[in-house]
Amino acid sequence: MDFTRIKNFIHGEWVEESGVEYVPLYNPSTGEAIGEVPLSSEKTSFEAVDSSYAAYDSWRKLSVSKRMRFLFDMRQAMVENKENLAVSIAVDQAKHISEARGEIGRVIEILETSCSIPTLLQGEHLDGIAGNINGRVVKQPLGVFGGVAPFNFPALVFGWFIPYAIGVGNTFIYKPSTQSPLFMQEMGNIFNQIGLPPGVVNIIHGNRSIPGTWYEHPKMSGVCLVGSTPTAKKMAEACGRGGKRSMLLGGAKNFLVVMEDVNWDVFIDNFIHSCYGSAGQRCLAGSIVAAVPEVYDELIERVLEASKKVTYGDAMDPDVYMGPVISAKAKASIEEYIKIGIEQGSNLILDGRNPDLPEKNQNGYFVAPTIFTDVTPCRRIAKEEIFGPVVSVMKIKDLDDVLQLIREQKFGNGACIFTQNQYYTEKFIAEADVGMVGVNVGVCAPHPYLPFGGIKDSHLGTNKVQGKDGIDFFTQNKVATIRVTPPAGVSEEGKKTDGDKSVRSCVAQ
Amino acid sequence: MDFTRIKNFIHGEWVEESGVEYVPLYNPSTGEAIGEVPLSSEKTSFEAVDSSYAAYDSWRKLSVSKRMRFLFDMRQAMVENKENLAVSIAVDQAKHISEARGEIGRVIEILETSCSIPTLLQGEHLDGIAGNINGRVVKQPLGVFGGVAPFNFPALVFGWFIPYAIGVGNTFIYKPSTQSPLFMQEMGNIFNQIGLPPGVVNIIHGNRSIPGTWYEHPKMSGVCLVGSTPTAKKMAEACGRGGKRSMLLGGAKNFLVVMEDVNWDVFIDNFIHSCYGSAGQRCLAGSIVAAVPEVYDELIERVLEASKKVTYGDAMDPDVYMGPVISAKAKASIEEYIKIGIEQGSNLILDGRNPDLPEKNQNGYFVAPTIFTDVTPCRRIAKEEIFGPVVSVMKIKDLDDVLQLIREQKFGNGACIFTQNQYYTEKFIAEADVGMVGVNVGVCAPHPYLPFGGIKDSHLGTNKVQGKDGIDFFTQNKVATIRVTPPAGVSEEGKKTDGDKSVRSCVAQ
Amino acid sequence: MDFTRIKNFIHGEWVEESGVEYVPLYNPSTGEAIGEVPLSSEKTSFEAVDSSYAAYDSWRKLSVSKRMRFLFDMRQAMVENKENLAVSIAVDQAKHISEARGEIGRVIEILETSCSIPTLLQGEHLDGIAGNINGRVVKQPLGVFGGVAPFNFPALVFGWFIPYAIGVGNTFIYKPSTQSPLFMQEMGNIFNQIGLPPGVVNIIHGNRSIPGTWYEHPKMSGVCLVGSTPTAKKMAEACGRGGKRSMLLGGAKNFLVVMEDVNWDVFIDNFIHSCYGSAGQRCLAGSIVAAVPEVYDELIERVLEASKKVTYGDAMDPDVYMGPVISAKAKASIEEYIKIGIEQGSNLILDGRNPDLPEKNQNGYFVAPTIFTDVTPCRRIAKEEIFGPVVSVMKIKDLDDVLQLIREQKFGNGACIFTQNQYYTEKFIAEADVGMVGVNVGVCAPHPYLPFGGIKDSHLGTNKVQGKDGIDFFTQNKVATIRVTPPAGVSEEGKKTDGDKSVRSCVAQ
Amino acid sequence: MDFTRIKNFIHGEWVEESGVEYVPLYNPSTGEAIGEVPLSSEKTSFEAVDSSYAAYDSWRKLSVSKRMRFLFDMRQAMVENKENLAVSIAVDQAKHISEARGEIGRVIEILETSCSIPTLLQGEHLDGIAGNINGRVVKQPLGVFGGVAPFNFPALVFGWFIPYAIGVGNTFIYKPSTQSPLFMQEMGNIFNQIGLPPGVVNIIHGNRSIPGTWYEHPKMSGVCLVGSTPTAKKMAEACGRGGKRSMLLGGAKNFLVVMEDVNWDVFIDNFIHSCYGSAGQRCLAGSIVAAVPEVYDELIERVLEASKKVTYGDAMDPDVYMGPVISAKAKASIEEYIKIGIEQGSNLILDGRNPDLPEKNQNGYFVAPTIFTDVTPCRRIAKEEIFGPVVSVMKIKDLDDVLQLIREQKFGNGACIFTQNQYYTEKFIAEADVGMVGVNVGVCAPHPYLPFGGIKDSHLGTNKVQGKDGIDFFTQNKVATIRVTPPAGVSEEGKKTDGDKSVRSCVAQ
Repeated sequence: MDFTRIKNFIHGEWVEESGVEYVPLYNPSTGEAIGEVPLSSEKTSFEAVDSSYAAYDSWRKLSVSKRMRFLFDMRQAMVENKENLAVSIAVDQAKHISEARGEIGRVIEILETSCSIPTLLQGEHLDGIAGNINGRVVKQPLGVFGGVAPFNFPALVFGWFIPYAIGVGNTFIYKPSTQSPLFMQEMGNIFNQIGLPPGVVNIIHGNRSIPGTWYEHPKMSGVCLVGSTPTAKKMAEACGRGGKRSMLLGGAKNFLVVMEDVNWDVFIDNFIHSCYGSAGQRCLAGSIVAAVPEVYDELIERVLEASKKVTYGDAMDPDVYMGPVISAKAKASIEEYIKIGIEQGSNLILDGRNPDLPEKNQNGYFVAPTIFTDVTPCRRIAKEEIFGPVVSVMKIKDLDDVLQLIREQKFGNGACIFTQNQYYTEKFIAEADVGMVGVNVGVCAPHPYLPFGGIKDSHLGTNKVQGKDGIDFFTQNKVATIRVTPPAGVSEEGKKTDGDKSVRSCVAQ
Repeated sequence: MDFTRIKNFIHGEWVEESGVEYVPLYNPSTGEAIGEVPLSSEKTSFEAVDSSYAAYDSWRKLSVSKRMRFLFDMRQAMVENKENLAVSIAVDQAKHISEARGEIGRVIEILETSCSIPTLLQGEHLDGIAGNINGRVVKQPLGVFGGVAPFNFPALVFGWFIPYAIGVGNTFIYKPSTQSPLFMQEMGNIFNQIGLPPGVVNIIHGNRSIPGTWYEHPKMSGVCLVGSTPTAKKMAEACGRGGKRSMLLGGAKNFLVVMEDVNWDVFIDNFIHSCYGSAGQRCLAGSIVAAVPEVYDELIERVLEASKKVTYGDAMDPDVYMGPVISAKAKASIEEYIKIGIEQGSNLILDGRNPDLPEKNQNGYFVAPTIFTDVTPCRRIAKEEIFGPVVSVMKIKDLDDVLQLIREQKFGNGACIFTQNQYYTEKFIAEADVGMVGVNVGVCAPHPYLPFGGIKDSHLGTNKVQGKDGIDFFTQNKVATIRVTPPAGVSEEGKKTDGDKSVRSCVAQ
Repeated sequence: MDFTRIKNFIHGEWVEESGVEYVPLYNPSTGEAIGEVPLSSEKTSFEAVDSSYAAYDSWRKLSVSKRMRFLFDMRQAMVENKENLAVSIAVDQAKHISEARGEIGRVIEILETSCSIPTLLQGEHLDGIAGNINGRVVKQPLGVFGGVAPFNFPALVFGWFIPYAIGVGNTFIYKPSTQSPLFMQEMGNIFNQIGLPPGVVNIIHGNRSIPGTWYEHPKMSGVCLVGSTPTAKKMAEACGRGGKRSMLLGGAKNFLVVMEDVNWDVFIDNFIHSCYGSAGQRCLAGSIVAAVPEVYDELIERVLEASKKVTYGDAMDPDVYMGPVISAKAKASIEEYIKIGIEQGSNLILDGRNPDLPEKNQNGYFVAPTIFTDVTPCRRIAKEEIFGPVVSVMKIKDLDDVLQLIREQKFGNGACIFTQNQYYTEKFIAEADVGMVGVNVGVCAPHPYLPFGGIKDSHLGTNKVQGKDGIDFFTQNKVATIRVTPPAGVSEEGKKTDGDKSVRSCVAQ
Repeated sequence: MDFTRIKNFIHGEWVEESGVEYVPLYNPSTGEAIGEVPLSSEKTSFEAVDSSYAAYDSWRKLSVSKRMRFLFDMRQAMVENKENLAVSIAVDQAKHISEARGEIGRVIEILETSCSIPTLLQGEHLDGIAGNINGRVVKQPLGVFGGVAPFNFPALVFGWFIPYAIGVGNTFIYKPSTQSPLFMQEMGNIFNQIGLPPGVVNIIHGNRSIPGTWYEHPKMSGVCLVGSTPTAKKMAEACGRGGKRSMLLGGAKNFLVVMEDVNWDVFIDNFIHSCYGSAGQRCLAGSIVAAVPEVYDELIERVLEASKKVTYGDAMDPDVYMGPVISAKAKASIEEYIKIGIEQGSNLILDGRNPDLPEKNQNGYFVAPTIFTDVTPCRRIAKEEIFGPVVSVMKIKDLDDVLQLIREQKFGNGACIFTQNQYYTEKFIAEADVGMVGVNVGVCAPHPYLPFGGIKDSHLGTNKVQGKDGIDFFTQNKVATIRVTPPAGVSEEGKKTDGDKSVRSCVAQ
């Protein structure tokens, strides 16, 4: 792969940012620098805002069928470029290529769901609310939105924000992570290929100074983020001060709860996928495996055996299961948590530090599957987000016990249970104090037809992403109250006041 | 074009029907026989039912995302075959080629809307209805549906029935009109090209004996029709007796109402399109132009002038506006109505009988634009469906007067008003006793996102086609009432009854 | 109780029908004649139609908030008359007084749900469908509906039909069963007490000749029934011929399925309530108890023991559980089925014929709990509706086996499963080929917030009753397609074409 | 009226706050002190939080039907106490008694709408999303919410917050304005009368320090406000920092737009009601009357004439139209704006300062109707919220001109147009950059069935109040993803793997 100098995509054109710092872009599988990413200037950010603001008026006035047609075309172009798009993710984000293909597939499904916008965007109408008064609710776009993406889902987060935002008539400025900018470089080309009007989507690279230009800007209407909880809170505060809408997804710490009637085959498959997929760098990754006493010992045996079989290596290597983590810094942070786990007295039964690697991946950022057992609820590895392939196994007393632990967590993203019992299922769905629940599922990401999002520190704002929720964040419900009165010379019944009052009829009486 | 022997499409294969009568297929533009259509046997019809019934179980159990994917693929194949599909209609149905392209475009939009099925198919869920009881509504398919199409919209009616029926999980048997079977011959190929499982859609040609095999058949779940009102009522009766669901669209007689503040440019454009488009053979064609006294005389002058400019000829001729009617019989029937109009005393100001035609169209079935004025409400041409390019101009007293005339009509399909006044607009929408209303629109066909259908004799059954209504007809709302009780040894709170009752907490008190 | 001569309630007045036959009204607990019911004339029926038709126009034009206010008032009046209303049912229908109170309570909940009509009646609105075209869906009433009630739920069926029908703006003619007319005599008084305009609801007593006047009547818009399947099919046929909407609920044959992990306490409670409540005269009564081999023998023992404890007697006696069946004829029919059961080889382990009764109930129509075991699927008592406290116990192989038996039934009303397993639960909900499913529930009647109704021979028509479905049957989705064009002298942008084009702004640039 | 020492309502009991400052409560009609209001301590505020948090768990687990029943009872109690409740507002808030009755009537309608909660609270369910995976959306409460009310709608704001918040299962702490606390003193009694569990609603009086205890409190889930924009922004910021949901309604500046085809009678009635009702102290009060040149002069003449006829005086005097403003401070502020209006060059044609008043109202806080003409868009009285009976008349060029002025406003609450033209109507609804639009309506408050709220500086947060929006703010859409697998020994089809595989059938083949 050639060394890539990442460009901004402003008003339909690829623009090279000059006179600013560039940060290196690494391939985490090898540690090799494969490009560089501009920390764009405020000036460029303001240009992006002006561009999107200028595009807004005619874009929102386009008929909903025409906007939907762009989404159908975008989907078709992505279908035709599936492999390219997947590779873009497998390289800079080092998501394993088979998972990268999965992410692209999922984004295509999100786009397909967003193609329902003419249905989802329908407002309400009620005749004769009172006297000659009708009421109407129109779902209308709001203006220019800005979005900030995390490194770990360069494609998915695009799917959450952009098709919905622009489908309903807004325009959008998107800031990818500087660690995984390649996917949007492909998408910019697709935007031009399908003829998306300039400014409907702008792409700008940089650090926090970019959203920093949005909070008080009169041309901006709202901000979205997928990131960490501290960042989300800071942005929520700034948006509040500036009077902007915000939808801000933060961190997580997800339980996998194992009941006495667990189906082991289902559990183990899901455990591996949940805890080690994307090297644990997912907001819905399993992080705590909590089991009731009846199966606790068997559980440890089984997860250890299965985890030892997990292969790792270059994200582009089809023969391994797991790639590296995103950066040297991330690797160091995960290793630090392993140290803390040991120090606080948990039992390290599988140590993923310093894994064996092929020559070419010696400088990659690898942590292999790691398991602690006998973790108790108040320890740091049981409460903080590690964001790597590190599993804490915990013994719980019963369902009520684990529901209480989940309730006390500051995060409230996902929680999964493994059981075949109807009561455990329903009680867990009803009472797990999170936004997303899985039953016999390791990664409880809702399908694109249904909303995605957590509560508590995992999600600031009232709207989730995807589906009907996705529409709500990006629109306002404008309400019209309409009184209708007859013109002069016409009665309430529609008769001319000075005309012939006889009634014509062809119905035999 | 070669002479075509039309085949049935049964369980994924093109099957030639033998040992039965074939009826000729004509090109109405020239009167030339271009093929022949089998009046298939009951035996073949039963095979179709068995095939669709056999296909049902695995089709309904396919995930909704997979079924939706077939709809996306069907749409894409139609986009790629647009011109072929349009020509198929322009030849046998003699819909003018530019209108034929419009019909295909509209069907593609219907398919796009049906791609929203994962959203539209969502049922409801309500926790804690009472005590430990949850409630759930699941929208489920019902089985095998049969559909009978009219000659005039070979593509549109396919779009109303099939994508919705199969999208939600039913299978379908479709009987095209013997006068316009070509479009479905193309579609059968598309079904195979996208890999639609055999039996999900079967196509069978024939006369009334085909639906006659459905009404009492235990493997059939419902029947739909677009046709005439007498046929619709007979089918409603048979479906009632046989206990089948039915959705049956019948005839129409549509008013175009012209108020004193009409925008003439808008009106004349819409008048021409509504009354002469498809040679008046549309269930939403304008048939009565009703004007208030203030504009009555000007209206006559303007519609006469505009109607005289309407060109007609071969449906494939890009330089003419209007093609022929469907058959020699249809032509004779329309001419008979013109005779009745004259006899009952209406004023024939434009006579479309015996129009001038090029040599090659001398044997085509042509009626040119025809206008009666001074038509009064009780005359036959004001009350019966003519289904040709014949316009009745009528003077009305005021809005109330025309609303009364519409109310008394046995049909209740569409009605349009031309006004710029808010009160006229709202009163007409609220009170015109029809299923579809147009405002400054000549053909008030709802866009595919919204339901289509009339009331009274224009529509038998409670569900309309398209959009959310389309889903309702093809599904049942199954309701589950679910009580959840804890397993033995566990309390309502999820605690083991014999276990440790202490509560663990990491929250500083 | 005095001997009551039942009157019709026509246009707000109680009218005594003269010159027609009266049929006796019995108290089934004692066999005593307590009144007489007119078989009203066609002339009276036509008066009722004229009255409701006359009331329609101003009723539908009343604002939705005013119509809703009548529902709130009706609810309040029923709350205040609870006991009276319950007694009315316990006397003529001989529903046990505690169940009668339950029925009134449920009807009040239905009314409470119908108070949501301003929310449920909202249509849709979509701006900018194409160019300057807006679309709107308005849910509108249709006219006059007629309804025929069965003897067994005099109050509930009122609740299913009338609040929804009139809440959305229709008017209604209601024919109670001649066997249980007393409840509506109370309701007529309530209608007057709350000031419901005359004709909005008419009550007429009689036989089939009453609905016979509706099918072809131009002033009628639709018909609803709760009754037997043969009646439902005949009415469906007549409605089809006459072009009327219909929603017709028929018979049933409901399974209670017992899996190996059944919670016995929950099951037995529900079994008693389901099979013997209302003396088995419910469309959702359990009729077949189907158990897997693992629990078959225990099941027989347990149901026998529990059934023997069921007490019966006068419906007004608070100390017994079960009252009589509705009539001597019903009693004879049930006894005939017991004979058939014996003849076809099933094992009668509990015989409810000729039960011991107190002196005053010697002439009442009593059948006590009756149980057959070893019933096989093809026997008549396993396939036909008995409508009495007769239970068939059947051994099934597994879940798949019973799902197949349910699928083959001509009825498709309800089916219940008793299990604690998640998979059994979900598979049964998904695949039991009925309209209503219960899980650990014996009478799977959906709560008033959700739709009620079966499929196949249990329900003719596409709409169920209650909730959102209730709205759909009683309304049409009228669709308006609205083009908006500027007045003369004004541009699309809203600027005067001959005016000053400068833009005013107070925003600092 | 006796001098009232206002109490807090904590955990179902009226508690007198001791050891804190009390502020006087005035009757604005007379300037007389009629009571005193505690500025409650943080300690009391924490008690309220603990109480509501303690109440939450059992309240949310109550079935939805039981919670709904409390709303029905609350409505009934308010219906029975209508006049008392109205007087409470007319005294401390000095809302004219006839308007006060209107406010109570409206709140009752809001409660009636909130009785639809079992319908509005229904989530979604989708079977077979993929393989054996089902999806479910459950609308769940979140915990404890706090709400801060303004002085001007003591009852309405209660209706916006509390029925919805508690109906869906949250508990609530409500801080009335210290200037109008009397209404909630009545409501607390009603809460006890209907048996609302302690802590479900707590009422606490005080200043900003009360919500100040909420933003970072772990037991609080969200905050709502109706107040000024600066307060709303400060609370938005604090909620962002603390990670709380917020719905915060701020200030407004509403246009009444008069087009050339205005119906003068309709306009003048609405103008008076909009500009002088509640003495202009409404967030939907008309503030700028903007007319096109054709009617500008006539407009001035007509509004002047009508305004001069407006009577004012004691809010309890049935013979006057308008009462005082809320306080001496408010009066001073309004008079200051009148001064500014004059200074910046607008034309004061009606001066409401120092109005004639009866003896007993000499110390009341009165400003009479005041009109400026020739106001230009950039002047302070055209841009800032005055919150009194002061009208600015402005000449606009055309519809486009005024749409631009509305777009540039920092507020975006309501805007009304007076026209009979369809195009003006639709364009204004579509493009007026506000949250609520009125057509021939002076106060464009949506009916309780539809959402209420503005955009831009008038509304911070994404959810409006009332109706479906009201539900969304107070719930999260929790999503469950559920995989179902058969128990050991059972196949996917529900067959025992070691059992008899034959199929039983009673259907004749």
